[in-house]
Amino acid sequence: MIVLCTDFGLTGPYLGQVKAVLARAAPAVPVIDLFADLPAFEPRLSAYLLAAYADWFEAGDVILAVVDPGVGGSRGALVIEADGRWFVGPDNGLFELVLRRAKRARCFAISWRPPALSATFHGRDLFAPVAARLALGGPPPEPEAAPARHPDWPDDLAAIVYVDHYGNAMTGLRAVRLADGTELEVAGRRIARARTFADVAQGAPLWYENANGLAEIALNGGSAAARFGLTPGSPVGLHPPV
Amino acid sequence: MIVLCTDFGLTGPYLGQVKAVLARAAPAVPVIDLFADLPAFEPRLSAYLLAAYADWFEAGDVILAVVDPGVGGSRGALVIEADGRWFVGPDNGLFELVLRRAKRARCFAISWRPPALSATFHGRDLFAPVAARLALGGPPPEPEAAPARHPDWPDDLAAIVYVDHYGNAMTGLRAVRLADGTELEVAGRRIARARTFADVAQGAPLWYENANGLAEIALNGGSAAARFGLTPGSPVGLHPPV
Amino acid sequence: MIVLCTDFGLTGPYLGQVKAVLARAAPAVPVIDLFADLPAFEPRLSAYLLAAYADWFEAGDVILAVVDPGVGGSRGALVIEADGRWFVGPDNGLFELVLRRAKRARCFAISWRPPALSATFHGRDLFAPVAARLALGGPPPEPEAAPARHPDWPDDLAAIVYVDHYGNAMTGLRAVRLADGTELEVAGRRIARARTFADVAQGAPLWYENANGLAEIALNGGSAAARFGLTPGSPVGLHPPV
Repeated sequence: MIVLCTDFGLTGPYLGQVKAVLARAAPAVPVIDLFADLPAFEPRLSAYLLAAYADWFEAGDVILAVVDPGVGGSRGALVIEADGRWFVGPDNGLFELVLRRAKRARCFAISWRPPALSATFHGRDLFAPVAARLALGGPPPEPEAAPARHPDWPDDLAAIVYVDHYGNAMTGLRAVRLADGTELEVAGRRIARARTFADVAQGAPLWYENANGLAEIALNGGSAAARFGLTPGSPVGLHPPV
Repeated sequence: MIVLCTDFGLTGPYLGQVKAVLARAAPAVPVIDLFADLPAFEPRLSAYLLAAYADWFEAGDVILAVVDPGVGGSRGALVIEADGRWFVGPDNGLFELVLRRAKRARCFAISWRPPALSATFHGRDLFAPVAARLALGGPPPEPEAAPARHPDWPDDLAAIVYVDHYGNAMTGLRAVRLADGTELEVAGRRIARARTFADVAQGAPLWYENANGLAEIALNGGSAAARFGLTPGSPVGLHPPV
Repeated sequence: MIVLCTDFGLTGPYLGQVKAVLARAAPAVPVIDLFADLPAFEPRLSAYLLAAYADWFEAGDVILAVVDPGVGGSRGALVIEADGRWFVGPDNGLFELVLRRAKRARCFAISWRPPALSATFHGRDLFAPVAARLALGGPPPEPEAAPARHPDWPDDLAAIVYVDHYGNAMTGLRAVRLADGTELEVAGRRIARARTFADVAQGAPLWYENANGLAEIALNGGSAAARFGLTPGSPVGLHPPV
């Protein structure tokens, strides 16, 4: 299975061309759109989201992840094997949290270049062919390499990293790391934890552990993003129980 | 064929995870995105849309439909077989019009629970595995059960149930039930029926029987939703010929 | 491979029904979403985009292209074979630039009609079945026919033809036709060429040859469309070097 996590948008031609490359090179491999709207230009926010969601996939799956404002510049191109899953994408911090949380990881530099490499679309020209080869069971590229690391990034991020279609706002915080009774604060409002939407009144806010383990802020029957003005990057306050 | 009708949005991770479950469990079954933007939190509006569009599919097809504001609460989980088509989703009225219009229908409660069931994502954890089993020819779950019914909902709904990408606004009214010469009224404007866009002047409004039998309000070459301020739930007036 | 280029939108039921038709008629043929948001009601703008992007596909591929404001009226229905690629869609100028740039082309009128042809959805009822037959290696329809031509349309269009998810604005100009040193002007601002985003300062504008050969206006790390108020149809000024 090849899993696409990008900031390309679903509607433009970008994902279509990536999928055309994959369909030619690995026609029997299912391709899944996981995210097409990762925060553009923001590898750091995406890194927390990617680590939380990649964890749900299986050994052998290939995650093709591209948030790549430096495309065509000097940043490197990576293949990472982390706990059996493959990751392919730019060396700009996008895989920092995957690496930090992995029990075992190996990293490889993509030194291969296609016959025609555009300056602005490495997702199609470079990363997709590499992902197809890995999905077909091919070996990783050589040589092993050390990606740029970001030790100053926290283990969990007290900020919004994604706003979904309902206006639910995912944070970069793993719910399991938050003490019982912790409240989250956005836009001056402290919000208590609940198990699911129906556990609070219609229109009331809650935070809950989402289906991939992140603390997520929502309203029952409405848009938390609209109510509290949340976008990717908005800060989140933490109030542990006293 | 598995047909997805949800309010999940196309861009977020939800449909991708549902499709990953389906690809693992039923890799040879085509999966079709029909609606990813059913009116959120509004099973009643979606019920009219679903009944009109499901009718176009074939016996044996599985419609996985999720508009589920009560997820994780006490609402039940259903499988319905209606005129040979399968429906899987929450017991909250979403299938009311499918049931009412079906010549033959059977209903089953999903009592099976997966090893890990999240509180907020039954689409992925519960409904998708059940849909995959049905698509592969498996038997429905047991026991037969009686879904909650909504006898107060009308047979046709004089309201907007969906606004598409062009700004065309679908009503919950079946065109075949409207007498010749009927006009529809929105935002104080009475609109006459035409066969297709080109039958009225550029920029003029019309209503027509859409390709799935619903009465739909549009402009020739523009957005009726923007012109008349239409969103799902907006009321529609009916003026039969005198 | 069948490539979908439409103004249907991704979220509504239209692409889903087209794909259901294709999945039934040609289940082994991959279907690629290339554009679902071609400029609605604007075959002329789409014609430049389509010619640039179709060129990337291979002989034998079938491009199903529908921007069809005249659906249900008197416009014809076409199959075109241009340099080995197949095109299926309405005879309204959408293929004008494909035809003009092709080394060899043949055109056929679709005289076949399905048992049930809706007035407003020929994409599903007429064009999709024809595309499926061609993708399976079937012969083109008969008879050969001459499409309506648009000799007054320029070879390259000095206007925005598409705005993507990032706010990058594609023009209808092929970069290879622009002399070295050419600047493009939008909203009173002259913009110089660069190779990639990282070649200009953060937040600065550039134009570059995009990965399919079109001149495209962008900002490094921001939205050119928002900054300069660009939408499909916005004029672009050309300043060749003096």
